[in-house]
Amino acid sequence: MLVVMQSHATEDQVRAVCRRIESLGLKAHPIPGAGRTAIGITGNQGAIDLGVLESMPGVIECIPVSKPYKLVSRDTKEEDTVLRIPTPSGEVLIGGQHIGLVAGPCAVESEEQCFAIAERLKATGVRLFRGGAYKPRTSPYSFQGLGEPGLKILAKVREKFGFGIITEAIDNESLDLVEKYADVIQIGARNMQNFSLLKRAGRAKKPVLLKRGMSATLDEFLMAAEYILSEGNYNVMLCERGVRTFSDFSRNTLDLAVVPAVKKRSHLPILVDPSHGTGKRHKVLPLSRAAVAVGADGLLVEVHHEPEKALSDGMQSILPEEFAELAGEMRQIAGVLHRIVN
Amino acid sequence: MLVVMQSHATEDQVRAVCRRIESLGLKAHPIPGAGRTAIGITGNQGAIDLGVLESMPGVIECIPVSKPYKLVSRDTKEEDTVLRIPTPSGEVLIGGQHIGLVAGPCAVESEEQCFAIAERLKATGVRLFRGGAYKPRTSPYSFQGLGEPGLKILAKVREKFGFGIITEAIDNESLDLVEKYADVIQIGARNMQNFSLLKRAGRAKKPVLLKRGMSATLDEFLMAAEYILSEGNYNVMLCERGVRTFSDFSRNTLDLAVVPAVKKRSHLPILVDPSHGTGKRHKVLPLSRAAVAVGADGLLVEVHHEPEKALSDGMQSILPEEFAELAGEMRQIAGVLHRIVN
Amino acid sequence: MLVVMQSHATEDQVRAVCRRIESLGLKAHPIPGAGRTAIGITGNQGAIDLGVLESMPGVIECIPVSKPYKLVSRDTKEEDTVLRIPTPSGEVLIGGQHIGLVAGPCAVESEEQCFAIAERLKATGVRLFRGGAYKPRTSPYSFQGLGEPGLKILAKVREKFGFGIITEAIDNESLDLVEKYADVIQIGARNMQNFSLLKRAGRAKKPVLLKRGMSATLDEFLMAAEYILSEGNYNVMLCERGVRTFSDFSRNTLDLAVVPAVKKRSHLPILVDPSHGTGKRHKVLPLSRAAVAVGADGLLVEVHHEPEKALSDGMQSILPEEFAELAGEMRQIAGVLHRIVN
Amino acid sequence: MLVVMQSHATEDQVRAVCRRIESLGLKAHPIPGAGRTAIGITGNQGAIDLGVLESMPGVIECIPVSKPYKLVSRDTKEEDTVLRIPTPSGEVLIGGQHIGLVAGPCAVESEEQCFAIAERLKATGVRLFRGGAYKPRTSPYSFQGLGEPGLKILAKVREKFGFGIITEAIDNESLDLVEKYADVIQIGARNMQNFSLLKRAGRAKKPVLLKRGMSATLDEFLMAAEYILSEGNYNVMLCERGVRTFSDFSRNTLDLAVVPAVKKRSHLPILVDPSHGTGKRHKVLPLSRAAVAVGADGLLVEVHHEPEKALSDGMQSILPEEFAELAGEMRQIAGVLHRIVN
Repeated sequence: MLVVMQSHATEDQVRAVCRRIESLGLKAHPIPGAGRTAIGITGNQGAIDLGVLESMPGVIECIPVSKPYKLVSRDTKEEDTVLRIPTPSGEVLIGGQHIGLVAGPCAVESEEQCFAIAERLKATGVRLFRGGAYKPRTSPYSFQGLGEPGLKILAKVREKFGFGIITEAIDNESLDLVEKYADVIQIGARNMQNFSLLKRAGRAKKPVLLKRGMSATLDEFLMAAEYILSEGNYNVMLCERGVRTFSDFSRNTLDLAVVPAVKKRSHLPILVDPSHGTGKRHKVLPLSRAAVAVGADGLLVEVHHEPEKALSDGMQSILPEEFAELAGEMRQIAGVLHRIVN
Repeated sequence: MLVVMQSHATEDQVRAVCRRIESLGLKAHPIPGAGRTAIGITGNQGAIDLGVLESMPGVIECIPVSKPYKLVSRDTKEEDTVLRIPTPSGEVLIGGQHIGLVAGPCAVESEEQCFAIAERLKATGVRLFRGGAYKPRTSPYSFQGLGEPGLKILAKVREKFGFGIITEAIDNESLDLVEKYADVIQIGARNMQNFSLLKRAGRAKKPVLLKRGMSATLDEFLMAAEYILSEGNYNVMLCERGVRTFSDFSRNTLDLAVVPAVKKRSHLPILVDPSHGTGKRHKVLPLSRAAVAVGADGLLVEVHHEPEKALSDGMQSILPEEFAELAGEMRQIAGVLHRIVN
Repeated sequence: MLVVMQSHATEDQVRAVCRRIESLGLKAHPIPGAGRTAIGITGNQGAIDLGVLESMPGVIECIPVSKPYKLVSRDTKEEDTVLRIPTPSGEVLIGGQHIGLVAGPCAVESEEQCFAIAERLKATGVRLFRGGAYKPRTSPYSFQGLGEPGLKILAKVREKFGFGIITEAIDNESLDLVEKYADVIQIGARNMQNFSLLKRAGRAKKPVLLKRGMSATLDEFLMAAEYILSEGNYNVMLCERGVRTFSDFSRNTLDLAVVPAVKKRSHLPILVDPSHGTGKRHKVLPLSRAAVAVGADGLLVEVHHEPEKALSDGMQSILPEEFAELAGEMRQIAGVLHRIVN
Repeated sequence: MLVVMQSHATEDQVRAVCRRIESLGLKAHPIPGAGRTAIGITGNQGAIDLGVLESMPGVIECIPVSKPYKLVSRDTKEEDTVLRIPTPSGEVLIGGQHIGLVAGPCAVESEEQCFAIAERLKATGVRLFRGGAYKPRTSPYSFQGLGEPGLKILAKVREKFGFGIITEAIDNESLDLVEKYADVIQIGARNMQNFSLLKRAGRAKKPVLLKRGMSATLDEFLMAAEYILSEGNYNVMLCERGVRTFSDFSRNTLDLAVVPAVKKRSHLPILVDPSHGTGKRHKVLPLSRAAVAVGADGLLVEVHHEPEKALSDGMQSILPEEFAELAGEMRQIAGVLHRIVN
């Protein structure tokens, strides 16, 4: 933390701030400048809310300096984390050199629907299947997902087609069930700061895919992951899915620069969801290309064989044959970057 | 829903869209214009995702027309809802002519702290006391609240000082306890779209204060309230607490225009939280004035007798004597608007 | 500027950064912390782009500390600036204790229109008249203003009704004319960083009203004013008119917290434009109340006697009789705050 | 325009709105729905501000339907516009299949600097050189560019190295000079709605590169281009350079989804500036890859041979040898998309 004093702050005011800092068990380092004095603070500031210094006479601002995350930081672990997702057909690697593709419908609607999509996806070489049994919907009157019967359908998809399964949990109760039936537990954007759920996910035995909240800063995103790691689950992958901005031509603004930014600060893998990130079918392919090109460790793509009949998000789902084309292109772009698509 | 066709869309394309609409059991109303044709859709569109029409040939855009909320809408109930919060010293009214003030610390830290603040607040005439026993914190290493022992302290504050108690629930488990100990159940900004929690709050027997999410649109905010009403709990008040924007001089951007906007669309009362809304002590008083002036039905203000020792948010807490001054000014401004401060 | 080193930065890396800083003629102050070292920089950094330090090995971030504005800062001039706008009926004061109201149509459409509005406004006690002769419009096909003939109409309004005139200049050519015909030169939001125009305004002999850009940070806003002062024109007032956010229920999000924030940092007066700030007629009155309550030094309100026939922005114009009511309420709220409405 | 009535609007209110619409010379199309009535409007609405209908009794909202741009629209010209930039070494094509690379320093500092950079860039195969002689800077105390002497240096770079020259104009006076010395006139983000400058650019005889404003919607961006085309200059290319959002880890949020969005609506080429778009050197290469992958028609990259000595934006400049690597990768990614890098 750095405390910046007003240019006309008196020496007494500077001393008073230093004394207050030291009374908190910390060390104050006044830096007299040409125009004004700043005071650096060192020592363990974890539990103390230093913002109050801002209301002391002569203080203009408090600027946080050290980053609050620990376990997710590259300072703690320098090499990339590579997740190993077990599937009936062997492990799928995500992170480091490895790019993982995940495809499937927005919502699990029926066994027929999932089998139809899974069968078509199987041919594309993708090995992870997504589909929501619990759907967070803006309206209470929209389709809310099939619940446990949906999870059972996903388990059958695993068994019959050999896919690893990724699906969302929305509260502690559904997390218990998702942990039982699926291979990866997804925490959605709206729950990124549902800290109760994050702690529960941190005690789960399965890997977690954590989506960025709609208006989460990078620090908040990494701190949400820190909640999961701090409970003992180190198998976490992040996912950018678009943030909310003034921009009105797409559902969200896909913030691809977050990918190199995460990689600079953290060892965790980060995927991109171009379907939610754009909300429009014709943007899924170009943004998928861009996501792999920018360095993402994977893609989460909504695929439906009959998007016009989808119970949710049909507008942003692509066809299985479009996904096959996409997967081929991803392999080519990954090749340019000396990476491997799983 | 209105489907806008491209200016060079063919008659066949227009007809195909109309057929698709009617195959969904709806009625299509083509409106041929000078430049292009638009197609209005009528009928019950609740369960159908019409966005898929956007990918039909010749279609440029689908524009939603009807608002999705029902029970919270002024269309359903024209007169203002007035909430009656029971307290040991009689009901406090919020809504209509009545402005409700709520004050107290960010977090319940100890019985001594709560009693010290409650005693000082008592003298100001405020009748609702706030304080968090469950604190959603960005960092897992920050103070997370006292939990049930904190709720018991709040219950003692009610008993000893006669306040009504408002406190936050963060998951289904804590909601059970908050419902037991408090008078109003608060759902925080980070949980505004925790639909599982909203449904549980909808089955509670106590009034709910629902804070706007950090990047919630007005429709999403009202739909979150709709979740609560749709489960049978009609005692809901909304609360604006600042939204996230590019603006960097305050923690959030307090969006006061949402107050008249809510009042135009909904019968529910709406409060303002100038403490979280600005994150800075010296802005709490001016923004409180502005909130009452713009027509808010109440204020939620963080007050601490020793803000520099607060375990959270000390930076935005004001002193009890500053709150007394604030309460006096609020009464004067309310008077200009012919309203009553409770 | 503060340079934050990585936690595993070597001593050599810290030394290299210090040497680079000193090679630039500045002084480096290393602050060794528990987790990492930070390096404070003092000396005159005006002309040097220190961001490059961020790419040196071991550096994680560069954090700017000192504020870049000088002449607009309270550090330079502690007391509030009070502008004195000359009008045929005496000076109007804006700033300090004094709140100035400005009213009139969005665009000057004709002498009849301006006279009709001016006559009705005269009765309300308002003494400053606004109206655009040059209109920045999103579309090249929209009404662009009458130009110099519009300015001549405004000059007649001054002469006939005794108003002071505020009107917008959009380039150097129009600024020459506005300076000739009007009493206050307005620089619009879209030109807030048209630095060529700001410099020209800085050489003008008349006061300048500078509107905040649609996505201007507070520092950028104050720096834009600094451009004007740095050329010698100290008669500047600022104006908040809403910023662009994700929020979609009003044209812009009026950021009222900027008022106390400006007052903390600068001695310049700041007005609020609730008409552009909301874009909706029914929000003008509540947001006007809020603006005066939050401490604004004035209001800029669009008034039209026949809003449904206005050539621009009719949607956000109120009627003269609504303005009379507004002016009365403003006087009452100002009274609560011990201020005077001019 | 579509006028949406309240659900309890009376038939008289609907009729009154229809009459008002027809009194304006337009045609009203009432669409009675299950819940409420909407009224479509057809006819030439160009000059009329229909927003005022929103304040009529019973009206809840007015929703614009038709897009306001004409000349820039794909409705007007279906095939991609391909710009031909003349250089001493032959034309460079931008648009359609052709991707154009542009490189050079942020600011022209001296002949030595420009020659040093140009010589190194020559070897990479890039054929368009950028460099600012007029620099819009947030602070009046920052380096503002060399002005005409800077343009003369750029003209020498053209002559000596055979590059086409792109440089920014900031007002009508500088545009006259840029038109004389350079091959492409750049309009910067801060001037995207400097309509006076756009009109002047529309009368220029050279191609124009128009950067997106920091908070410009897609419609505003295209309308700004429309200003240039409407004055007769059809040689316009757009450029995404990042928008302003809450996200704080990079200077701006590069909105790559705007590329397919522009291509859906307009025939104009669109480039991406990853240097301003991220503000950080280590993000330039990944975001350049992403920009080409998403379908951009070119890149504008800041290159400096001694970034740590740059007078502006050194922090986001890459080295000539890094650019050589980037150019090579761009050719490979373009190959995957069957496009050609010029």
